[in-house]
Formats: sequence, C-alpha cells, structure tokens
Amino acid sequence: MNQAIRNQIRVGIVGYGNLGRGAELALKQNTDMTLVGIFTRRDPASVRPACSDTRVFLLDDLPAKKDEIDVLILCGGSATDLPEMTPRLARDFNVIDSFDTHAKIPGHFAVVDAAAKAGGRVAVISVGWDPGLFSLNRALAQAILPSGANYTFWGYGVSQGHSDAIRRIPGVRDARQYTIPVAEALEAVRCGETPALTTREKHRRLCFVVAEDGADREKIEQTIVTMPYYFDEYDTEVCFISADEMQQDHSSLPHGGNMLRSGKTGPDEENTQIVEYRLKLDSNPEFTSSVLVAYARACCRLHKEGQSGCRTVFDIPPAYLMNMSAEDMRATLL
Amino acid sequence: MNQAIRNQIRVGIVGYGNLGRGAELALKQNTDMTLVGIFTRRDPASVRPACSDTRVFLLDDLPAKKDEIDVLILCGGSATDLPEMTPRLARDFNVIDSFDTHAKIPGHFAVVDAAAKAGGRVAVISVGWDPGLFSLNRALAQAILPSGANYTFWGYGVSQGHSDAIRRIPGVRDARQYTIPVAEALEAVRCGETPALTTREKHRRLCFVVAEDGADREKIEQTIVTMPYYFDEYDTEVCFISADEMQQDHSSLPHGGNMLRSGKTGPDEENTQIVEYRLKLDSNPEFTSSVLVAYARACCRLHKEGQSGCRTVFDIPPAYLMNMSAEDMRATLL
Repeated sequence: MNQAIRNQIRVGIVGYGNLGRGAELALKQNTDMTLVGIFTRRDPASVRPACSDTRVFLLDDLPAKKDEIDVLILCGGSATDLPEMTPRLARDFNVIDSFDTHAKIPGHFAVVDAAAKAGGRVAVISVGWDPGLFSLNRALAQAILPSGANYTFWGYGVSQGHSDAIRRIPGVRDARQYTIPVAEALEAVRCGETPALTTREKHRRLCFVVAEDGADREKIEQTIVTMPYYFDEYDTEVCFISADEMQQDHSSLPHGGNMLRSGKTGPDEENTQIVEYRLKLDSNPEFTSSVLVAYARACCRLHKEGQSGCRTVFDIPPAYLMNMSAEDMRATLL
Repeated sequence: MNQAIRNQIRVGIVGYGNLGRGAELALKQNTDMTLVGIFTRRDPASVRPACSDTRVFLLDDLPAKKDEIDVLILCGGSATDLPEMTPRLARDFNVIDSFDTHAKIPGHFAVVDAAAKAGGRVAVISVGWDPGLFSLNRALAQAILPSGANYTFWGYGVSQGHSDAIRRIPGVRDARQYTIPVAEALEAVRCGETPALTTREKHRRLCFVVAEDGADREKIEQTIVTMPYYFDEYDTEVCFISADEMQQDHSSLPHGGNMLRSGKTGPDEENTQIVEYRLKLDSNPEFTSSVLVAYARACCRLHKEGQSGCRTVFDIPPAYLMNMSAEDMRATLL
C-alpha cells in the first residue's frame, strides 16, 4: 500500500437523499478521500448511487465497519433524523452533520459534545452554508466591525421546508416554493443604509403548485398565503402549473443568498464599511454536501491531534479544510 | 482591580501613519482591549493622536514596557519597516503585522517563525483584507469547490503604491490613483462564465494629478501610461486637477474588491456554484486596522494556550477573533 492510499481519509455517508448523493459526488473531487460506502435504512438494493463503484450497506452494518471508517457524513434531516443520529454515532465515529434548526443548536451541541467526549471522537455540527459559511463570515465581520448591523437575505432559491408545507395542503399534488430577496432592501444595505426591515420587506415568496384534478384552486391559494409562519408575513404569489411544467422547469434546486455586515469606523464613526458574502448556487444540496466534505477533512485532522468533543465552524482553522500543505497555502493563496 | 480590567488585552501600536491611527480608533470600539500607547521613531511631541487620552512613546522605550503589553500591532510598511521590525519584535512580544508583499511572504514567515519560537511568542503576519480576509475566503471556497477558478478584483479604490509611483515623476506635486475593476469582467464571472482574463481586461486605472506650475503635462501623462508594471498593461486615464480639487475631492482613502470562486459540482460537473466575498470600504486603513485588532485578540489567546511561532489567517479558528463566549456565538451567530 503506498503512502497516498494509506493516508486516504475513509468516509462513510449515512442517508441517501439529495445531500447524501451530493456528498458521494463531492468525494470524487477530493483526491485525499475515499468513500467506503453509503449506509441506509432502506433495502440497499433499492438505492441507486450516482457512481457505479459506490457500495451500499444497511445502517445496521455500520458498527462492524468502525475500524474501516475515519469519518461519517450524516445526511439526515434536522427534524427527526439528526437529533437522534448524531449523538448516537458520535460515540463511535467522527461525524459531521448539517443540523439547521437554529433555535435548537445549543441543545444539540450539548448532547453531541457529551457523546463525542465519552467516545474520544470529534463531531462537527451545523455545517453547510447557513448555518455554516454565512455564520462564519457573520462572526468574522462582527469581530472586525463591532459597531454595525448584520443582514441576511436568502434566495433566489427553492426552500424545501416551504415546498413541503404546500404539499401537505389537501388538493395539492406537487409544489415548489422559491424564496426571493427584495432587491430594493438588499441594494439599500449595499449602499450603506442600515434600515430596520420587516419580514415582508426582506423576502417575497413565489409558489408553483400542481393541483389535483377538480381541486378548489382558490381555496388552495388562500390556504397558502394565510399559512402562519410560513407565508402569512410575506408577499406571496401562487401560480398553478401542470405536472409536466413542474418536471420540466422546476426539477433543479438552486439557492443562494447574501450575508452583509454594515459597519462604522473612524473618529465619529463617519466611515461606512460593507462586508458582503454571497452565494449563487445551481444546486443547493451539492454545495451543502461539498461543505460537509471539506469539514469532514478538518474533523479527521482534529481527531488525529487527539482532540475530542463537539465543534462548529467557529472552532476550526481554515487550513484544516484544505488538501494542501501550509507552505503551499501561504505561497499560493495568501 | 476588577475582573474586567484584569482581563483586558493590553495593546501597543508601533508606527503612527494611517494604519496606526486606524488601530487607535478601532481599539476604542473593542471593550476588552486597552491601548497602552503608540510607539514611534519620531519625536513623540510631534505626533497628534486621534484620541486625547492616547499616550505616545519613543520606539526605544518599548523594551522597558515588555511586561505591560500583551500584543503589538505593527503598523509599518511592507517595503522596509516590517521585514526588519516583525522578526526583531517577535522575540519579545506577541505581534501582528500586515505584510503584503505576496511573493516575499514565505521568506518573511520563516524568519518571523524562528524569532517567535525562540522567544515563546505568537506572531500573526499578513493580516488585513488582501492578504487576509480575501485569502481566507479564497482558501475556504477552494476547499469546498476543488474544481473551479478564483478571480480577484480590486477597487473602486485608491492604490497607495500607484499614487506614490506617480508622485515620484518629475513635475508632479501630488497624485491619487484609483484602481477600477472592469464591470463586464466581474459580471461575466458572477454569471458563471470562467473567462481567461488579461491584466487589462480585469482592471483599469484612473489617475488624478496635480502638476507643478509650468510642468510638461503631456510628458507626465506619457510617463504614467507607459510606466512598466504599474501602468503599461492597463488602460490608464490621467486627469490634471488643482491642488484645491485634490484636497477637496480626493482626501479619503476608499477601497474594496471582490474575491470570487466559480466552481463546478455534479455528475458531469454541470452545476455552477459561485462564491463571492465583497468589500466596499469608505476607509481602507481604518478597515485594515480593524482586522489587525481582531487578530491581535486571537494572537493573545493562542499565546495564553501556550502556543508559539508564526501564524497566518489560515491557522486561526474564527471564534478566537471574537469578544464573545462560544456559547453566545452558537446561540446568536450560528
């Protein structure tokens, strides 16, 4: 076995939806990482991986493979999968998850931290772009510009949560919801204004709906635009389309957003300093899983150093994410 | 002495130009840091600090104050000051510098690293926005999107180096050079194209010049636009203005820029993922020094942990930059 193969980071993917598939594809782009396999609760024969050489195992086979895996990328959902899965697996494996229920992050951190410490493993939670890269740049900008305000705009992009909420309405066959930032608000912040923006002033929502034959479209539309939390505080537009149109025009999952900090410096804080971090993504799950893969590399390095416990993007030196020596980074990227 | 005062990070500023003044002002915005004083080679009585309570000392007084200072912010220039100053001071102090001669960074790192290790100190070099924040986001984006291309655009903003180069031309009394990104090139990258751009296609240069009475303006203009490295590879416009106009319209030092990575993901790399980091700064020196101040905090934390040697932005966990507990960061910024 040569050095390059011996030093490979051996990765397992747990769960195979859009995110798991994205992770499988992202690993192909990282020459220092090898995919051991996908672990699923489904019948492995029913899973069709993106790459012909990918092996699929039952989730129950995971404990037996403990010594063959350096890090697990957990690709379950934040609602029910990750709260149970991350602490359970963090005892025996280094793990990465994309837990994104903001209000529940401190609680999730506590249970995962206890499990990872008990097992001498490293867990990195809430990795992705928000939470994740947006959080990191939010913290950086705030550290540099203590006097100022943060603004986050999401979109143009598909919100899976809002699409799902529409699909649960009686008479709806399929739905796709696009979150769209209000251009005037974004432009105002970019120009150095620090407006107090209401929910409605920051984003609007555009919904494409395939109704069942004979469904009451007016009632569906009313149910959407008045839905508490999801739509009632926004300007929402509903368009009914055919199943063919849905398939043809709305099968991709673009997303993105803008994180801005507008800060003040100078003797009378008279100078405005604008920091903006912007993502424009053709595929939200493929990008998110690419972030997970980079942090999986960092997770292994932390564990190799003898660290254990739970970490977030705030705790990880950027160099740990890269498949490049510190010397090369200083020479080519600094 | 109460806990808050005892835990204050005690900072010295070395050098008092635009950057030193910016650091002095930035420290006022950071409640966990105290300015011990400015250290200068000039007669301290000749220095007029921005804040009335700032003390000014001779640079020669620095060794005597070793025990009163936790970190020094070195505000000298990269051409002659920092190559000598940073390694010399890194032996006895934790230090931060903004060394920005890209090609010489590896050499600077080596001598500073040796000095800091010998003295048991931490030095963080090449801190600012480029090198600095742009480098950090360049590395992050490249780690996440291994298949792709980086683009950096600078401006709209004043380049001090180019302004100085014009001022050295005989017949020139004063000059201000603005670097301007070519909007079409930036827009092409934002739209997912990955053009191979020449120097001329990325930036143009606009020069405001105050000529001495009776100077040969045509000759000055020719000298500027044909100046090797600085201007000959760019479309350069030269405007002659009066000293009053210079004073009135060009006394501020705005700058900024855009760092982009255009990456590809997916089975046939068919999806384009654009990461953009953008700065729009009313005052370049005040922003740069604000970055230095945040990294000064991190430098002290690394030293408190018992670390020593040279570091760059790649090595530092984002949490170390913030005056906020890890718990609060997770609860409010993640």
